[in-house]
Amino acid sequence: MKITGITITPVAFRDPPLLNSVGVHQPWALRTIVEVHTDEGISGLGETYGDRGHLARTRAVAPALIGADVHDTNLVRRRVAEVLGGERGTDRHALTGQLTTSGTVDRVFSTFEVAFLDVRGRALGRPVSDLLGGAVRDAVPYSAYLFYKWAGHPGGEPDEWGAALAPEEIVAQAEAMIERDGFRSIKLKGGVFPPEQEVEAIRALREAFPDHPLRLDPNAVWSPETSLRVAEELDGVLEYLEDPTQGVDGMAEVAARAPMPLATNMCVIDFEHLPRAVERNAVQVLLADHHYWGGLERSRHLATICDTFGIGLSMHSNSHLGISLAAMTHLAAATPNLDHACDTHHPWNRRDDVVQPGALSFVDGAVPVPTAPGLGVELDRDALARLAENYRTCGVAQRDDTGYMRSVDPTYERKNPRW
Amino acid sequence: MKITGITITPVAFRDPPLLNSVGVHQPWALRTIVEVHTDEGISGLGETYGDRGHLARTRAVAPALIGADVHDTNLVRRRVAEVLGGERGTDRHALTGQLTTSGTVDRVFSTFEVAFLDVRGRALGRPVSDLLGGAVRDAVPYSAYLFYKWAGHPGGEPDEWGAALAPEEIVAQAEAMIERDGFRSIKLKGGVFPPEQEVEAIRALREAFPDHPLRLDPNAVWSPETSLRVAEELDGVLEYLEDPTQGVDGMAEVAARAPMPLATNMCVIDFEHLPRAVERNAVQVLLADHHYWGGLERSRHLATICDTFGIGLSMHSNSHLGISLAAMTHLAAATPNLDHACDTHHPWNRRDDVVQPGALSFVDGAVPVPTAPGLGVELDRDALARLAENYRTCGVAQRDDTGYMRSVDPTYERKNPRW
Repeated sequence: MKITGITITPVAFRDPPLLNSVGVHQPWALRTIVEVHTDEGISGLGETYGDRGHLARTRAVAPALIGADVHDTNLVRRRVAEVLGGERGTDRHALTGQLTTSGTVDRVFSTFEVAFLDVRGRALGRPVSDLLGGAVRDAVPYSAYLFYKWAGHPGGEPDEWGAALAPEEIVAQAEAMIERDGFRSIKLKGGVFPPEQEVEAIRALREAFPDHPLRLDPNAVWSPETSLRVAEELDGVLEYLEDPTQGVDGMAEVAARAPMPLATNMCVIDFEHLPRAVERNAVQVLLADHHYWGGLERSRHLATICDTFGIGLSMHSNSHLGISLAAMTHLAAATPNLDHACDTHHPWNRRDDVVQPGALSFVDGAVPVPTAPGLGVELDRDALARLAENYRTCGVAQRDDTGYMRSVDPTYERKNPRW
Repeated sequence: MKITGITITPVAFRDPPLLNSVGVHQPWALRTIVEVHTDEGISGLGETYGDRGHLARTRAVAPALIGADVHDTNLVRRRVAEVLGGERGTDRHALTGQLTTSGTVDRVFSTFEVAFLDVRGRALGRPVSDLLGGAVRDAVPYSAYLFYKWAGHPGGEPDEWGAALAPEEIVAQAEAMIERDGFRSIKLKGGVFPPEQEVEAIRALREAFPDHPLRLDPNAVWSPETSLRVAEELDGVLEYLEDPTQGVDGMAEVAARAPMPLATNMCVIDFEHLPRAVERNAVQVLLADHHYWGGLERSRHLATICDTFGIGLSMHSNSHLGISLAAMTHLAAATPNLDHACDTHHPWNRRDDVVQPGALSFVDGAVPVPTAPGLGVELDRDALARLAENYRTCGVAQRDDTGYMRSVDPTYERKNPRW
């Protein structure tokens, strides 16, 4: 089943003004849609980041994959590495900085690997989860992913969510999100306001949702001292504290005394980061993400590493569309030791998608695992064309939360630690 | 593709009097052949240990797998664990002692997993290596596995190999084995004679084969002090020293000062053993073995762990037949970071097999990876019946190297450390 062609389409879709530790989401989020075509007439789908550098790397690699077999992932990963020739990308919004060489390979490889699995599943008449050892759950639980946000983008109308700055507005956001999708866990993206204010929001959430596991993620803008102070204040309140501070050493320092597990998708984003993190017991929960852990199979290997070394497993999300949601859901379904609800930006971006509606839904906060062949989603060609046109005209080719914030508030500065 | 039946056939085949640290191989080696039948009329093959306890566990588990799908390995592993209910096996020849609960599950599960992959490969018209990420090598190199041995079993005729006790006899054995199969690495099973004598044999091998990587494996019967003395004497001579001493702590003590890498298939035989071995840097090369690491997929996860934590990868072997050789070859072919030739007992047992001849061969010490669907081997029903009859009549149902040695030399005692 040989690859005869690869179509790569960058797309842009509307994104609300979600605040985080380095600025605010621009009006457009970017992704790249990959279609892999084979000599048996079966095509498969992949979805990845849309930033300029990553898109260029994805495009550079594609011609080298023509003629490869969709089963030959070992060979394909090697070819990806050869084409990239040791190149190292940067994180698309500078939250984690420069990547390792192998981490860059894994990011580019991942998209194709997902598409290959989609092809193989379609050819076999089997869902992708069946190619990953089989689903151990019928539906994958996701968390309600709350953000501090403005009412709308500057100069624009308020969006459907409205402003969320004060604790009661965060609670209202959670209520609206849970009302619609039924989430049973809650994550708050923090790092936006002084820690005391975010602690207040968490306390308000705890009061409003006494039984929902809660997480707080300040994206590493706290010092270890601040992290420990917050950790102590939220003892017994948080399921886990995500990336309170920067780097494996800082996390280890906090982890040694924090009363709750620490989670990360920032200081351990590559297999090369694991030995030191394990040695220092820096993280107790890993937020895996197949987009950067080298695809679905390598994410399963990662899951076995976590199981072996006693690290809990959850799942990270960037702004994404339905192809990624399907891939995340198949992977999570087939990962027995995934022991926390996954993150998804889906509620923020659900009005736009490139897949035909109906295949993916949220029921009680969980996505039923698609049982149709492959990923179980089909491209909506009209929607794809529309989102591709957005990309061409939107003026964004690189995520830049800080630059966008500065365009609104020229005094805004990135700082780490900020508190 | 649901399982409709499972056929389990214990077999026995001739084994020469190979000496090791706990005694000597009995005249009969035992294995269990598993055939998994499906509702699509396709069957798959697995091969595993033949000892009484393991055979009983394999038989106990089989009925619980009827109706399961051959893709559902997550579910099947869980069912195996449920049926075993926390039971813990012992190593079949008491080299490693009692297994962990999860290690026992992995040993029983592995056989079925291989058979499922055989079914899936046959259904797809693809070799099993293609279900493991694709072969990265056309042929898998194996080592010449030398043993000290008697000329023949007591009371019997000398076998084709004759005696090998003195260094020059070990060299002659290597010459004969390499003459026939072309091996390019050499392993000597030691732990039989005082270390000085085995060092002499290694030196004689080095002289006769100046370019062949050499390994020595005394199966952990040396003290750390003896291990270090031998390690220093063989500095620059050995590719690696295998299991010189017992346990992770002993190995770590030796590894800290030995000039060559230490390898193991004794102190790390289960995912649960890895954290402490990594923490203590006890082993530099892991001899993986899909029969106890939970099958081919989990062995790939193990390979990623080794890659991640900077541990080299080789492959262990017990006495085996062609189904296992095929499975080992597919796995090794699809494991990019396998960086040492694999072990195989094949030269010692090649006169008997349950698979039809022709599919597997040694060319320059390497087995060309089968390209036929599935494992690429077919049962020879007459041979299977013959070996099954051997099992029924041979009087051996449990490997017992020490008991057999004692039947010849009643003064023989197991000792650890012996030197």
